[in-house]
Amino acid sequence: MAQAPASEWVAIAPEDLLVMELSADRDGKSRRVVIQLMPPPFSQGWIDNIRELAAAHWWDGTSVNRVQDNYVVQWGDASEQKPLPGGLVTVPEDEYASHGDVPDWQRFDDILVPKGTFGNEGYTAFNNGWPLAAKGGPDWAYKWPVHCYGMVGVGRYLSPDTGTGAELYTVIGQAPRHLDRNIALVGRVIEGMEHLSSLPRGTGDLGFYEDPAQRVPIVSARLATDLPQAAQPKFQYLSTEGATFARYAEARANRRDPFFNVPAGGAEICNIPVPVRKVTEN
Amino acid sequence: MAQAPASEWVAIAPEDLLVMELSADRDGKSRRVVIQLMPPPFSQGWIDNIRELAAAHWWDGTSVNRVQDNYVVQWGDASEQKPLPGGLVTVPEDEYASHGDVPDWQRFDDILVPKGTFGNEGYTAFNNGWPLAAKGGPDWAYKWPVHCYGMVGVGRYLSPDTGTGAELYTVIGQAPRHLDRNIALVGRVIEGMEHLSSLPRGTGDLGFYEDPAQRVPIVSARLATDLPQAAQPKFQYLSTEGATFARYAEARANRRDPFFNVPAGGAEICNIPVPVRKVTEN
Repeated sequence: MAQAPASEWVAIAPEDLLVMELSADRDGKSRRVVIQLMPPPFSQGWIDNIRELAAAHWWDGTSVNRVQDNYVVQWGDASEQKPLPGGLVTVPEDEYASHGDVPDWQRFDDILVPKGTFGNEGYTAFNNGWPLAAKGGPDWAYKWPVHCYGMVGVGRYLSPDTGTGAELYTVIGQAPRHLDRNIALVGRVIEGMEHLSSLPRGTGDLGFYEDPAQRVPIVSARLATDLPQAAQPKFQYLSTEGATFARYAEARANRRDPFFNVPAGGAEICNIPVPVRKVTEN
Repeated sequence: MAQAPASEWVAIAPEDLLVMELSADRDGKSRRVVIQLMPPPFSQGWIDNIRELAAAHWWDGTSVNRVQDNYVVQWGDASEQKPLPGGLVTVPEDEYASHGDVPDWQRFDDILVPKGTFGNEGYTAFNNGWPLAAKGGPDWAYKWPVHCYGMVGVGRYLSPDTGTGAELYTVIGQAPRHLDRNIALVGRVIEGMEHLSSLPRGTGDLGFYEDPAQRVPIVSARLATDLPQAAQPKFQYLSTEGATFARYAEARANRRDPFFNVPAGGAEICNIPVPVRKVTEN
């Protein structure tokens, strides 16, 4: 990966970066979490809402309220009373998946499992830097993002409510694929995941903190475009359409370093996280 | 599950319970982790070693030394100098899998994915309370335990070293299935997983703690049989051969509560954790 040509590293646009500052930890260390928002054609209604919420500084003063082991960390307004900014849209349920085709669909048939056997799911594949799944056959154009570790989704009440984007969660365990197509995925954590995954587990139902004092305050959440130019973090992801990613995926499926005796002969899509790196320019 | 007949809950023998006490946390709360060891025909050489190590109080004064996000927490002797007790056996690599057949193999063909498509893996299945995988075809008798969240394995150096059982780890992220058949799995965490999964991530290579002060002391690790009778914890698992487990597995693959719109139509074996409950007798 260190030898990948620069052309295979794709810059992430600053309007796709949500920078969330949690309160300092008990040792006084700062805790920054950076989320990359998904590109079209996925979940853009919720993502527009998220940009509105960030512009309104809506998350400032809210908190992380739920940490359920091997499942999710969730944040937002614990009081459920904080007024939302105007201009948010209500997104229909059928936007959980795309309905237009996706170019450059990278199926990696020799590597990715399962295929053609997961209920209505035909294949998983990478596209444009993201883990996706698709129906097979006549529903080929119907595609959706996958609930891998670190992916960020939109909390909601019962169907047909789809959530606004104000209540967000990230996956901290085995991929909960049963949430695919039942919840909007809007992005993934690309920095500071450990500040969420290592939080104390909540002891209430579903891992909610029982004592409000356990909640972790969110100091601020801003799009990178709303930060001073010098403070904007810069990230790149490894193109999933390039030769380096193909070699990386194959190496994940068949480990060949001296530690391993038996190559697995395949990998699930969530065992092949898309490489992301921080760019520090002088 | 609350309606399962008592006959479907299987008592876990006290000689299969390893009770590990970590030092109290920063708030003075005790941290107990209970591990269930695997039954035959899996990994019994390492498990015999683990029983010897516990009897010798070998882990007392060792520590948790490595926490790698979305991968493993590892504990043992950070100095790598502590003498091992006599009587430990060297277990050959081919014991990573069983070579005798396993009765009551529960394939759940309508539920479990992938099947027949994961390299040399033919099927996953439950047996005797554990998640397993098998080759298909003529190698049918060749079966092995699966690296799900919370499973406990034996750290080792490079092949053909197989580790003694003194260095242990548990999975805290997406199932690292590439470790199957490359490492001995010996059990799973059945209580106190949160005391391991929520530890601060290490910042050294592979998630090792760089500052020895970050290590989490292990006060003691004992087989339940070596605890006073009144202090022995009692656990049961839900039989994977019973009708209740079959219904539970189907419900995990096809969620039908009002939250869900689209049932997944299948589940990976690590998304169907075997239910374990603590028994409190008066």
